[in-house]
Amino acid sequence: MRKEFAFIDQLLKPLALGSAALGLTDDAAALDERRVIASDALLEGVHFLREDPAETLAHKLLAVNLSDMLAMGARPSAYLLSLFRPAWIDSAWEEAFARGLAVAQEQFGLELLGGDTVNGGDRLALSVTMIGERVAPKLWLRSGAQPGQRLALLGRVGGGWCGLQTALGKQDFGRAALEHYRRPQPPLHAALQLAKADLVRSAIDISDGLLQDAEQMARASGCGMELDFDALPLWSGDADPMAQATGGDDYSLLVALKPGDWAAAQFAVPDLHLIGRCCEGEGVVLRDAQGRVMPLGQKGWEHAG
Amino acid sequence: MRKEFAFIDQLLKPLALGSAALGLTDDAAALDERRVIASDALLEGVHFLREDPAETLAHKLLAVNLSDMLAMGARPSAYLLSLFRPAWIDSAWEEAFARGLAVAQEQFGLELLGGDTVNGGDRLALSVTMIGERVAPKLWLRSGAQPGQRLALLGRVGGGWCGLQTALGKQDFGRAALEHYRRPQPPLHAALQLAKADLVRSAIDISDGLLQDAEQMARASGCGMELDFDALPLWSGDADPMAQATGGDDYSLLVALKPGDWAAAQFAVPDLHLIGRCCEGEGVVLRDAQGRVMPLGQKGWEHAG
Repeated sequence: MRKEFAFIDQLLKPLALGSAALGLTDDAAALDERRVIASDALLEGVHFLREDPAETLAHKLLAVNLSDMLAMGARPSAYLLSLFRPAWIDSAWEEAFARGLAVAQEQFGLELLGGDTVNGGDRLALSVTMIGERVAPKLWLRSGAQPGQRLALLGRVGGGWCGLQTALGKQDFGRAALEHYRRPQPPLHAALQLAKADLVRSAIDISDGLLQDAEQMARASGCGMELDFDALPLWSGDADPMAQATGGDDYSLLVALKPGDWAAAQFAVPDLHLIGRCCEGEGVVLRDAQGRVMPLGQKGWEHAG
Repeated sequence: MRKEFAFIDQLLKPLALGSAALGLTDDAAALDERRVIASDALLEGVHFLREDPAETLAHKLLAVNLSDMLAMGARPSAYLLSLFRPAWIDSAWEEAFARGLAVAQEQFGLELLGGDTVNGGDRLALSVTMIGERVAPKLWLRSGAQPGQRLALLGRVGGGWCGLQTALGKQDFGRAALEHYRRPQPPLHAALQLAKADLVRSAIDISDGLLQDAEQMARASGCGMELDFDALPLWSGDADPMAQATGGDDYSLLVALKPGDWAAAQFAVPDLHLIGRCCEGEGVVLRDAQGRVMPLGQKGWEHAG
């Protein structure tokens, strides 16, 4: 079996014939002039645990899809749900799941459009297709970064990693970490503020770890990136910084801005953190407080099953 | 765990807030004035067998979704694919699957827009979201049937049942039956002809068996239906007629027409078979050649896992 990226590159990209698919390299496709569309799927044992509460799973399912919409500069509006139900699902689970969807879709401004339900299999599997209305005057693409631009992060990194450690009982980062893992909160309102301000040149959501997702943006844009390790807004002061910078499930947003636009962007969205810059070349390097390039181990993770 | 219909009725319908979802009672939702959208999912062991060729599985995946588009009077145009890959998937399978998608999407006029890939689980699971452009001047809904209208079938019934028996080695209906099971051919061109002619008042695709799907249309429309058993265009003269009328996986199209429109419809689409009429009351009855109501056993099947 190919790795996910190779599978997409070699076998699926040739099927994406039109320009609307954006070469399958972005967080969503351009459905038309004013909307975007994307699918994101979760599998028991990979993205969540069977014992995770059904209500928070419903939240997470919508949140991860929402994150893809924000990464395009779009406001999520509707979704379709495909649900593979194994025999361990009972009525109480179903009711809690529906309650979780109801709460999350109200919070995010979504409505259910359709979907499918299939009974069978051993593991719960869910796929959501979400539609968003473009707010940014131009779509935010991964390929829009250029040397000289500033890199900023909307939200923090490490919350997903701290939450997972806590959920697995490996280290205890407290209830807030568990809550972040189970009920991630992509920066909906701040991202839409930023989209209205029309300052972002490129964006990607941080779902597989900051370093890996920054690599994706650098590759799509054909440039290099330097990140200032000390500037990273880490979720926890107690947890390993490198683990936080490379862990997944953060659902913050990495954006590239023209140097002259940084002040206006920070004025529009005070929660924005300046973390680095785009440069000539390729790849992502981390610099320490003295400006030295730091050695990197694993840059992120592919969901391994 | 609730049955699929109860799960949708009780828990999901309250989440479908807008009119675009059509109350989750139709084959697709109204994405906007000119487009429809639907998701349909397949699971190994329920909808297909692990030993089914990857190329025909890819065809079937697109065909079952295509069928939902046709049932709305729409031309399918693009799709997103979520793929849950268990460990038994190898590179040869992936290549054959991609080839099957390429051939089917060219046949059906589709392009890939996006999707997601997840590794893990024991069974292969697939979900497609498809988008269609409306061809019929008014959307075809399940709720449009009225007493007095004629019922016609585009395509035959029983091919899915005969094919499954053959695939399972229970009875041998030959290669054509196996081909119908593995590579169903929804009536794409004929349905679009019919859509252009603007004669259809209500439609549903036959995926769960003719009688069960007719029941769905009757319930959505608030009327009854009489089907003439002898008039049913059965796939095989050798197979049990009732099994063919109640088996699933046919992907033909049941439509309701005003009585005065039947001649024009048949002229537009010669492949259309007149099989019954809508009446006052509720439920679906089968009448034999003498007009007597026939006793009915199981009317169709819910995928049981």
